Amino acid sequence: MKSSVGRLVSILYRKNQVYLNGVLKPLNITAAEVPVLIHLFGRDGISQEELSSFLVIDKAATARVVQSLLDKGFLRKEKDPNDRRSNQVFLTEQAIEQRATIFAHLRQWTDFLTAGIDEASVQTMFAVLEAMADKVDGTDFREWGQKG
Amino acid sequence: MKSSVGRLVSILYRKNQVYLNGVLKPLNITAAEVPVLIHLFGRDGISQEELSSFLVIDKAATARVVQSLLDKGFLRKEKDPNDRRSNQVFLTEQAIEQRATIFAHLRQWTDFLTAGIDEASVQTMFAVLEAMADKVDGTDFREWGQKG
Repeated sequence: MKSSVGRLVSILYRKNQVYLNGVLKPLNITAAEVPVLIHLFGRDGISQEELSSFLVIDKAATARVVQSLLDKGFLRKEKDPNDRRSNQVFLTEQAIEQRATIFAHLRQWTDFLTAGIDEASVQTMFAVLEAMADKVDGTDFREWGQKG
Repeated sequence: MKSSVGRLVSILYRKNQVYLNGVLKPLNITAAEVPVLIHLFGRDGISQEELSSFLVIDKAATARVVQSLLDKGFLRKEKDPNDRRSNQVFLTEQAIEQRATIFAHLRQWTDFLTAGIDEASVQTMFAVLEAMADKVDGTDFREWGQKG
């Protein structure tokens, strides 16, 4: 059988979740919360709707993760000054303090996975994954089911 | 910043879930159920514990997915003849009939993602992903958090 990106990505994703839940437990952070934190490290102060859209997580799941991070003191909410009906979420100092540790764990995961594989192949793998991630970014797959 | 396998895999995984939920809706199959079906297509008649272990999904999540597939008629349960306390799950005819369609959708996803990328790079990407998936397969990451 020809290789399936979906199958391989799914295996690597699930193991990454187990790994992240393990190493981030001392920080009181779960694997499900990592994408939200990472996104806010890059661009702080956005609405839950934007988070949901950027991260391709449904609104209910985004709301659960944001609430959990608020409860644990990693996020705070503020009314959007331009739209009083909307809230923006911001990282707290407590979250910003964990930034380096979280990135170090992501780095450790990449280093573990790629150890012993020649550098040129690893770079090609990254280039192809980046190209595929860019490609899916702008595509709304919810409509594909209606085509066929 | 150096690329992160975790970040790229996470993006591709989440979009794959949206895609699978869309295209498999007419079959009454969800993205969460796909790994269980795929695994049983390869090796039918195993216990829930084995499924949970092979798929790196926790036991509660495995039980939910198996129950959902039983309810929809895609699986049936039988007592393990060698261990009466354990159940084995088997694919029904209804599931086997969907095999080709499910694989076609996985293939369509791979084809969509890799379209326009040169074949040599795609093959290298697959070889590296396979090597990384093999590497994580035998590692118990739950213990990593206790190390550091």
